[in-house]
Amino acid sequence: MTPGPDDVRLVYEGSLVDLVVERWGEHSREIVRHPGAVAIVAVDRDDRVVLVRQLREPARRALLELPAGGLDDGERPLEAAKRELEEETGLRGGTWRELGSFYTSPGYSDERMTVFAATGVEEGEAAPEADEEVELVRWPVAGAALRIDELEDAKSIAGLLLYLREFRS
Amino acid sequence: MTPGPDDVRLVYEGSLVDLVVERWGEHSREIVRHPGAVAIVAVDRDDRVVLVRQLREPARRALLELPAGGLDDGERPLEAAKRELEEETGLRGGTWRELGSFYTSPGYSDERMTVFAATGVEEGEAAPEADEEVELVRWPVAGAALRIDELEDAKSIAGLLLYLREFRS
Repeated sequence: MTPGPDDVRLVYEGSLVDLVVERWGEHSREIVRHPGAVAIVAVDRDDRVVLVRQLREPARRALLELPAGGLDDGERPLEAAKRELEEETGLRGGTWRELGSFYTSPGYSDERMTVFAATGVEEGEAAPEADEEVELVRWPVAGAALRIDELEDAKSIAGLLLYLREFRS
Repeated sequence: MTPGPDDVRLVYEGSLVDLVVERWGEHSREIVRHPGAVAIVAVDRDDRVVLVRQLREPARRALLELPAGGLDDGERPLEAAKRELEEETGLRGGTWRELGSFYTSPGYSDERMTVFAATGVEEGEAAPEADEEVELVRWPVAGAALRIDELEDAKSIAGLLLYLREFRS
C-alpha cells in the first residue's frame, strides 16, 4: 500500500507552486507541490558543455547552472527538455538520453527533476521568456571536472557529474 | 549592488518553511524560505558509506539518502552536521571536511545545503526525532559508484559523486 496522509490542507495556491499542509498520523508536514522539472547537459559539436547564467531571485544573484525549466501541463520530460533547451540557449538537435532523475528537496517538496544529456547539439535561435535574461557560458568538457565548484545548485552538480562519469568510463 | 525585490508579501508562515511572493519589476516570484540544511557523506572505519532510508512524505515512499537535516536557529553548518549525523545514525567522531555547498531548488527556494565528508566515524547510539523512523544502509565505498542509481535525491547524488571524485583521484 502506498503511504498517504490522513488529511491535506491547501494553504497557498500559486502560479508555479502550491503549498499544502498534510497530517500523517501524529505529525504534520509542509509540502510544496511542483509540476516537475528537467535539466540538460548539452554538449555542442566542439565538445563544450553549455551553461546558463541568470538571476535567481531566491539567491539574490545570478547563478551558473545547467539549462533547466519546469514541465508545462501534460508535457513529458524529454519534450520539455528539448523545448527548454531551445528557448534558453537556441540549441537544438543532437542525440538525447536520460542521465537520471531525482527529487530536489524531498524533505518539503515533491519536485522531481529529470536530467538529460544532449550531445552534438547545434546553434539555433534562443527565445527566452520575457522575464528571463540568460547569458550562455561554454566549458570544454575535458576541463569541466575541475570547475564543478563554480556551480552552485544541486541539479547542475549532480547532472554534470553524472555526465562526466560516463564520459570518463 | 545586491539585487532585491521591490515588494515582499508573506503568504504562509510555517514551522519548517515560509512562503513569500516577491515582486521584481514586472514579474513576481513565489519563494520558499528555508533555514538551510546539511548533508553528510559518512564513511566508517570499514570504508563503508552510511546511508539512511526513511519515509519522505512528499514522495509518498521511503528514499535512500545521505544523512541530512535542517539548521537549528543560529546553528553553524558543521555543528548541525555533527548533530544530525549522531541523531540519525549514532555515528560520531571522525575527520570532517566540507565537500561543497549549493542551492537545492534555486528557482523557487532559498534553501542552501552544505555537504560534509566525515571519514573514520565510529558507532554510538542513534536518537532519531520522534517522527523519524530511519533504517541504516551501508555501502562499501569501493562499489558505491555503481549504485548511484539507487539514490533518488539531488543532494545525495551530488554529495556522493563529489566525495567519490576525490576518493578516486
